[in-house]
This record gives sequence, C-alpha cells and structure tokens, in this order.
Amino acid sequence: MKVIHYSEAPSKRMDGETVKGVTGRVTIGKDDGAENFCMRVFELDKDGFTPRHVHEWEHEIVVIDGNGEFFKEGKWISASKGYTVFIPGMEEHQIRNAGDEKFIFACLIPKGVQEL
Amino acid sequence: MKVIHYSEAPSKRMDGETVKGVTGRVTIGKDDGAENFCMRVFELDKDGFTPRHVHEWEHEIVVIDGNGEFFKEGKWISASKGYTVFIPGMEEHQIRNAGDEKFIFACLIPKGVQEL
Repeated sequence: MKVIHYSEAPSKRMDGETVKGVTGRVTIGKDDGAENFCMRVFELDKDGFTPRHVHEWEHEIVVIDGNGEFFKEGKWISASKGYTVFIPGMEEHQIRNAGDEKFIFACLIPKGVQEL
Repeated sequence: MKVIHYSEAPSKRMDGETVKGVTGRVTIGKDDGAENFCMRVFELDKDGFTPRHVHEWEHEIVVIDGNGEFFKEGKWISASKGYTVFIPGMEEHQIRNAGDEKFIFACLIPKGVQEL
C-alpha cells in the first residue's frame, strides 16, 4: 500500500502557448505496480488552463479543491470539490481555473498512455 | 462529457457486522461508457468503516474531505484531503473514519469487477 499526499510526488511544470500555470504529478502509476490505470493530480494556478485538445483515451476526474470549469461543446461547465467528470475518448476538452485559489483535481487515464 | 457532483449519483447504503456507516455511489461507470475503469465515491459516517478484506483487484483512492485511516500490515495510516492511496491486489486493507466529520474519498477499480 502506498499512501502519499499528492504534493509529495515529483512534479512537472507546464507553461506555454497552449497550456498555462499547470503542475502535474503522477501519484499512482506503473512504477507502483498499477498496471490498469494511472492517477495524476494537477494543480492549476489562478488563470491557469490545460490545452484544448482531443485524444483517443478517456479521463476520469475528481475535483479536490478550488473552482474550475470544463469546456464541453462550446460551453464552460463549473465544478468544485466533490464533482466528478467523465471525458470519453475523442471528445474535445479543456480545463481552466475559474477562481482565485488553486484548482486541484485528480485525472485518471487507462494503461497504454503516457503517464504525464 | 458527464459532470456530476458525487452526491447526485444513486447511493447504496452499507451497514452490517463487517461494514458500518458507509454510503457508496458509482459516479463514472459502464453505463457512462467508461470501459476501462470505474469511479466510485464513498462517504463514511463518524465511526464508520469498510470491511477488512482481500481481493484480486487493486484500488486507486483519492481523499476528498475529512480525516480517515487506512489499515496496512497491522497499522493505521492517516490520510486527509489530497492524499492518494494505492492498494495493490491481494493486499489486506480496511478504511475507517477517524474524525468527527464525514470521510469522503473516490475509490477506482479496474474493469471486470462489480462496480458497487
């Protein structure tokens, strides 16, 4: 059993033209023996956002803290602590922080996909 | 895309000799088209606990709120919001609420297992 606060995991910073203010961490992955799916935790800074993109694999997301929005078919849907979000494969999506505090969520992906 | 607060999902109450004060909900599952893994959210009431058991499949857990403890090899490990827990298959485990408020966590399982 591995018990770890997400902030203890090694982090990867993402900043660029299509992504801003994002810190990602793999908290449960292949290195832990998790062979079927992988848990990453992301922090979005104030005004931070992930890329708007499409890919074959699904996301299963649960919000831990803060206030964010999910881009779905041209609209932004709000989500805060306790919301869960399923993004099927091949559906365009983007996530942004809509609050003043960090927006923090776990985002799980199936095996066979780059973990982070 | 499905965006849902966990409390909006249908609930199943679990109370008995080996489990106490547990409410479980499938928030992302097969009915949503999630074919690789399944997200359930559990609330443990004050003094609530899950069964102490062993099974073949793994758990990937992220704590949403409250203060809980995870039974690992004879000891109880504390976890609160932002902690993630990997329980490999065939490892004995149990989860209990260690606080006065509800202990709330998402617990994901691979495909092929009963969702709740």
